[in-house]
Amino acid sequence: MADTVIGIDIGGTNLRGALVDGQGNILKRMKILSEADQGIDRLIDNLADFIKDISLGEEVYDIGIGVPGIMDSENGIVTDAPNIINVDNYPLRSVLDEKLGSNINVVIENDANCAALGEWWMGAARDVDSMIMITMGTGVGGGIIIGDKLWTGVGGMAGEIGHMTIYPDGARCNCGNYGCLESYASANAVKRMVHEGLKDENVVTNLRESVIDLDIEDIPLIVMEAASRGDEYSLSIWHEVGVALGIGIASLINLLNVDMVVIGGGVSNAWDLFIDSLRKEAGKRAFRAPMGRVRIEKGALGDDAGIIGSAYLAHQSLAWGA
Amino acid sequence: MADTVIGIDIGGTNLRGALVDGQGNILKRMKILSEADQGIDRLIDNLADFIKDISLGEEVYDIGIGVPGIMDSENGIVTDAPNIINVDNYPLRSVLDEKLGSNINVVIENDANCAALGEWWMGAARDVDSMIMITMGTGVGGGIIIGDKLWTGVGGMAGEIGHMTIYPDGARCNCGNYGCLESYASANAVKRMVHEGLKDENVVTNLRESVIDLDIEDIPLIVMEAASRGDEYSLSIWHEVGVALGIGIASLINLLNVDMVVIGGGVSNAWDLFIDSLRKEAGKRAFRAPMGRVRIEKGALGDDAGIIGSAYLAHQSLAWGA
Repeated sequence: MADTVIGIDIGGTNLRGALVDGQGNILKRMKILSEADQGIDRLIDNLADFIKDISLGEEVYDIGIGVPGIMDSENGIVTDAPNIINVDNYPLRSVLDEKLGSNINVVIENDANCAALGEWWMGAARDVDSMIMITMGTGVGGGIIIGDKLWTGVGGMAGEIGHMTIYPDGARCNCGNYGCLESYASANAVKRMVHEGLKDENVVTNLRESVIDLDIEDIPLIVMEAASRGDEYSLSIWHEVGVALGIGIASLINLLNVDMVVIGGGVSNAWDLFIDSLRKEAGKRAFRAPMGRVRIEKGALGDDAGIIGSAYLAHQSLAWGA
Repeated sequence: MADTVIGIDIGGTNLRGALVDGQGNILKRMKILSEADQGIDRLIDNLADFIKDISLGEEVYDIGIGVPGIMDSENGIVTDAPNIINVDNYPLRSVLDEKLGSNINVVIENDANCAALGEWWMGAARDVDSMIMITMGTGVGGGIIIGDKLWTGVGGMAGEIGHMTIYPDGARCNCGNYGCLESYASANAVKRMVHEGLKDENVVTNLRESVIDLDIEDIPLIVMEAASRGDEYSLSIWHEVGVALGIGIASLINLLNVDMVVIGGGVSNAWDLFIDSLRKEAGKRAFRAPMGRVRIEKGALGDDAGIIGSAYLAHQSLAWGA
């Protein structure tokens, strides 16, 4: 029986994936454009090609796929994935079965849940049996592992940490609610805060020259660099990010009393700029005992967390199928 | 093997308990004063007498006890129980073993966790495998059951739903934090809101005549009655309670995507006065799919939830011990 599986992370821009063995080692990695903006058929063609290419010369039957959206994992259906492609109850698994042959076993899961599994299997949380993953990207995603198991909820929707309410009368979130964690701790949030600052003529900041016309993914990096050079307004943005995370994480600690909180995703690269504010705020709000017990750490796997987590799911399905 | 166990709920005023069979039926119930205010020794003497009296003529070896505080359930130790008695790492199980004989098997658990187990085993949530219990009493307690198991956390501290932050700059909570759910949805919270209203001379309310010098446990009832008679200020208090619960429950739904949220405890008797505000607020904030799926209901067991839940734990320990 082949011990190697494929883990894939579907993004709006790229399809990234790897061959991963049973010990979590990456044997080979690949990245191609997802071309999700050209429609679901193009994305699926690219996905099928990706799988054929990466498994060339290998016996690989089990594939885990992380998708940024809401899954009905049991039935292999993408319920909703607004940020990559407009699909509504898309039967991803059966479509891939048709393209790749039914001896191929496909498991799908929300991408932040995959990142949680990756960090828990091979990364920062490998020695614990309960952890919360927070992914800071364009939005804020999350995954919850308790009792050595991913909790996906009764409808596969659990872990939406980005949509805890932090400030009931706060900034409007993309989800329609107000004051969600996502509206204070994502690339979108940083962009909003930058633009609010620039509108106020009294705010002095280097950002005035640098952020105009940037893509949203690039804005956090610019604000990181400006903050690192001492730009006060940029520093205040990361402080606000840290405070919002601290409020949310304190609630999570009081609710779930987990071993670890792991924070990943591109925006978490500003770690040094927000972690002190985060810890201080969480320390003020969480009970002493569970706060003293929890470790709050940066993800150890970077972009690979989702790939390794989806590979973990593929390995599990291989074990179940045996 | 005897199939009957004892379930006990320790309160600041009363010790309440029952003989409960393996099907969750209450065979006999008893209530005595806990006299917790006279010290831990008196409380323990009363508890031992209670157990001897209720089990008179029966073969009962397994006892579940719900305690309002923080437990190290594995080792049978009450870590902290500030609202009933000032103890610090009190070895409740071994003390009872000594008093009752070592053939008696004692299980202890947080009282709100017991209420969750009770409602899930025999009450409002008996047909689901994931639920969140919220108990509205002097404070706000909580219990989380997912995957047909109580999640107690890595240090037995999980489920502190009353200490999620709802309003970061809100009212000070007994725990030292600001804006906790407990400071908006408990008897203490209602008392605070009443007194704030009475301080403002512009507020017209029947409460002026009725709440002075009342014990805290009695205030919610007075405010319920006044609201039911149309007192605007009293109605606004229950609206505020409902909104705070709605904000917290929306976050819980997005986080945990459970089958049910069950609300119990004495203050939940104001159900008709806050449930509409609660549902409206939660509906604005939670994602449609998990919100559409969750059932939010009043507890079905009333004061018996904790007793039946602690009996459930005693039955479990009997199964494990067999």
